[in-house]
Amino acid sequence: MSVLVPPQPAAVYVSRRSRLSRALAGEPAIFFAGDLVPRNYAANTYPYRAHSHFLYFTGVHWPGAVLLGSGDGWEIFAAPPAPDDPLWIGPSATWDELQAATGVRKIRPLGELRTALDSLRGVATLPAVHPRTRARQASLLGRPWGAHDEAESGTVALAGKDAELAEAVISLRLQHDAPALELLRQSAEGARAGHLAGMAATRPGRRESDVRAAIEAEFAARGMTPAYGSIVTVHGEVLHNEHSHHPLRAGDLLLADCGADCHGWASDVTRTWPVSGAWSPTQRALYDLVLQANQDATAMVRPGVRYRDIHLRASLTLARGLVDLGIFRGDPEGLVERGAHALFFPHGVGHLLGLDVHDMEDLGDRAGYAPGRARSRQFGTCYLRLDRDLAPGMLVTIEPGLYLVPAILGDRALCGPFEADLDRERLAAYADVRGIRIEDDVLCTEAGPDVLTAAIPRDADAVAALVGAPRDAD
Amino acid sequence: MSVLVPPQPAAVYVSRRSRLSRALAGEPAIFFAGDLVPRNYAANTYPYRAHSHFLYFTGVHWPGAVLLGSGDGWEIFAAPPAPDDPLWIGPSATWDELQAATGVRKIRPLGELRTALDSLRGVATLPAVHPRTRARQASLLGRPWGAHDEAESGTVALAGKDAELAEAVISLRLQHDAPALELLRQSAEGARAGHLAGMAATRPGRRESDVRAAIEAEFAARGMTPAYGSIVTVHGEVLHNEHSHHPLRAGDLLLADCGADCHGWASDVTRTWPVSGAWSPTQRALYDLVLQANQDATAMVRPGVRYRDIHLRASLTLARGLVDLGIFRGDPEGLVERGAHALFFPHGVGHLLGLDVHDMEDLGDRAGYAPGRARSRQFGTCYLRLDRDLAPGMLVTIEPGLYLVPAILGDRALCGPFEADLDRERLAAYADVRGIRIEDDVLCTEAGPDVLTAAIPRDADAVAALVGAPRDAD
Ligand SMILES: [Mn+2]
Ligand SMILES: [Mn+2]
Repeated sequence: MSVLVPPQPAAVYVSRRSRLSRALAGEPAIFFAGDLVPRNYAANTYPYRAHSHFLYFTGVHWPGAVLLGSGDGWEIFAAPPAPDDPLWIGPSATWDELQAATGVRKIRPLGELRTALDSLRGVATLPAVHPRTRARQASLLGRPWGAHDEAESGTVALAGKDAELAEAVISLRLQHDAPALELLRQSAEGARAGHLAGMAATRPGRRESDVRAAIEAEFAARGMTPAYGSIVTVHGEVLHNEHSHHPLRAGDLLLADCGADCHGWASDVTRTWPVSGAWSPTQRALYDLVLQANQDATAMVRPGVRYRDIHLRASLTLARGLVDLGIFRGDPEGLVERGAHALFFPHGVGHLLGLDVHDMEDLGDRAGYAPGRARSRQFGTCYLRLDRDLAPGMLVTIEPGLYLVPAILGDRALCGPFEADLDRERLAAYADVRGIRIEDDVLCTEAGPDVLTAAIPRDADAVAALVGAPRDAD
Repeated sequence: MSVLVPPQPAAVYVSRRSRLSRALAGEPAIFFAGDLVPRNYAANTYPYRAHSHFLYFTGVHWPGAVLLGSGDGWEIFAAPPAPDDPLWIGPSATWDELQAATGVRKIRPLGELRTALDSLRGVATLPAVHPRTRARQASLLGRPWGAHDEAESGTVALAGKDAELAEAVISLRLQHDAPALELLRQSAEGARAGHLAGMAATRPGRRESDVRAAIEAEFAARGMTPAYGSIVTVHGEVLHNEHSHHPLRAGDLLLADCGADCHGWASDVTRTWPVSGAWSPTQRALYDLVLQANQDATAMVRPGVRYRDIHLRASLTLARGLVDLGIFRGDPEGLVERGAHALFFPHGVGHLLGLDVHDMEDLGDRAGYAPGRARSRQFGTCYLRLDRDLAPGMLVTIEPGLYLVPAILGDRALCGPFEADLDRERLAAYADVRGIRIEDDVLCTEAGPDVLTAAIPRDADAVAALVGAPRDAD
């Protein structure tokens, strides 16, 4: 794979490494870019994306590369180009160009890494994500977690210097700098183009995959990729639905949760629209309620606010609306306290967003949960991925939803405590809603919320007007 | 991930397993589906695709699953569904449904695999592709290749029963059965739609990525994915060009090497077209020559023909044409014998095609090269991936090309022996050609070649007429 220079000036990466160095008081650290991953044989690989920590401090997608340093002295170690690279992969940036563009002191052959490490008395590191990289890292640095399953990445117990490095990196990456926000805004713009194309491509008789194709084509045209597996489905009640083979029928709602990866930086956006371009009264009622929850939650995004309170605020709006519609009976505050809202809103209101769509989830809840805070055990809130006090520069998603999930509404253990609160007859009238979610990317600023995805329509009438809009003549 | 039933009737997979069992004379074998692969953290995975051998014998994309059996008694071992799967991933096919749809005797929890293995006296296996799967496989079965780098997959020395299994699987997969051909034809149809959309989306001022997006959207709309990293570039002289950020200029040729993955089965198609919709005389001359080589080589595809002879036939057509154009001097046969053609055609004329775009390349040259045959050492022909005698049901690509590669034409070691044969002044007139390739998927039948990609235009005038054709109103 040929290596391109980073998308932003060297000063961006120099500054990040220097802030890290200060936080580490000069102690050395090492980051692994990760390796190419085979899809069905070694030479047929998945599209390469560098590990996020490496990317944050270098800006380059460089398979197998390693960043090592401390203070002002950072170096990249990488495999030298092969003699037949010019034939197969074309002209790469030279090491001189890459050195200048990343601002590192030097780029050296990987073969020299062992000696460089031996001259240090220990170096801090974070567990690599790819199993092959992790194994090499663990043996190179004498870490015990080489044999672990990468599914456990986030639960690796980090000790001593590694734990300090994790805290330092989290502190930096939690509050986005201006260059990060520049790319995050580009990513949100890609998401806007995608969702508009998806709405335009929707009409009864097509399939979910036609809409997904239209959305992802807008990403691809901008040189972006999906930041995560796109969810484009008329079965929005399946929260992580991966399939998109269902036909679109006139009475369906289509839920699209699609975000772009722009030079490694993610957007994460969900919109829901009616396949026919017209809402039924019941769909409209629940949609407007989700939108209200989205707006109530978004309005709370400002420094010092505890994110879990935003989750509870959205839950309260939803519970109140469900009482107004007669689906729930009783007192909304009491319903939320007891967790009744989770029957229809069984996930968290959002998460950190940055290089990763769940930013820094490779470090488990260490990034999402402030020290001393842990996950709730209540169904619904236990899925909340973030419980920090917000600070300027933090980017979070706000994504309330309402779902009629047979697996929940038919579960006696889950519904039992709330059966008396629930008017199932009234609920039955809303059977033409399976799942609705409205998700925005919201930056915390001193002045309050800055919605990066504000240009993507979410008002019910505006959305409906865009469905099947003539953008092409097919 | 929810697991879907296979795309074809159970009898397809029963028959393949039964043919394998006969070849193994009742000895047991085990195949691994491979695991989900993390992209940037454990829960954000690359799109899953089962390992090809597992897929061939079961038809299902089932992360972590294992197929074990012999004779008529085959079983799948898999992780039981998690209790909250219905919430997050929706309704999966049940194990009963999957058992019926794959025709295996039983589906059992992975936890029972160890005991099942202990009841056997050894079992044959092939090295898994994903490093995590490989490590588990190696420790489970006591194979020494657990720690190997997966890049070496194809060079793992298989011994005893494993080597016999490799030969048996290769024999089966070399000659495609009717159900395989059905999906391969669908894949070729996806490629047709993609290339036509790509031609239509081409116009000066756009970028390579716009065309790539148009092509891949046709795959996505059909529920297909790219079978390999699409190559869409005005720098066709870079053989494995991965980037698509260049602008399209009026005098450029655009080379698109894009194929679809349809339920795991690949197409692999290259077309080259002028960005402006009009060929220059020099571009046209070299294009027609590549087309002639494609046709001469395709015409040779029939049972009993040695594939290397097809490669040499294409090379001869190209050399003869280059002599006619005055770029080479002298005798075409002699030029090919000495390898002069490789200065402009530095790769093989094609490869096996099936589930993998380079079919069974996970087994190295064991699949592509008949016993007793090995790679040539001559520059150019050393890159030939296939040297077997063709047989009915074998599907190969035919993909001659002509490239003006600075890294070759400026290399004294490579060009030295041919400097006297080369008219560099005449060559300079062709500077507006950087790379041309025309690649088709050709099935060997008793009646001769059956070009699965025949519906994708390749005649110079036909191709030019499709460029920028109004398919949409943008
Ligand atoms: Mn989200
Ligand atoms: Mn090919």
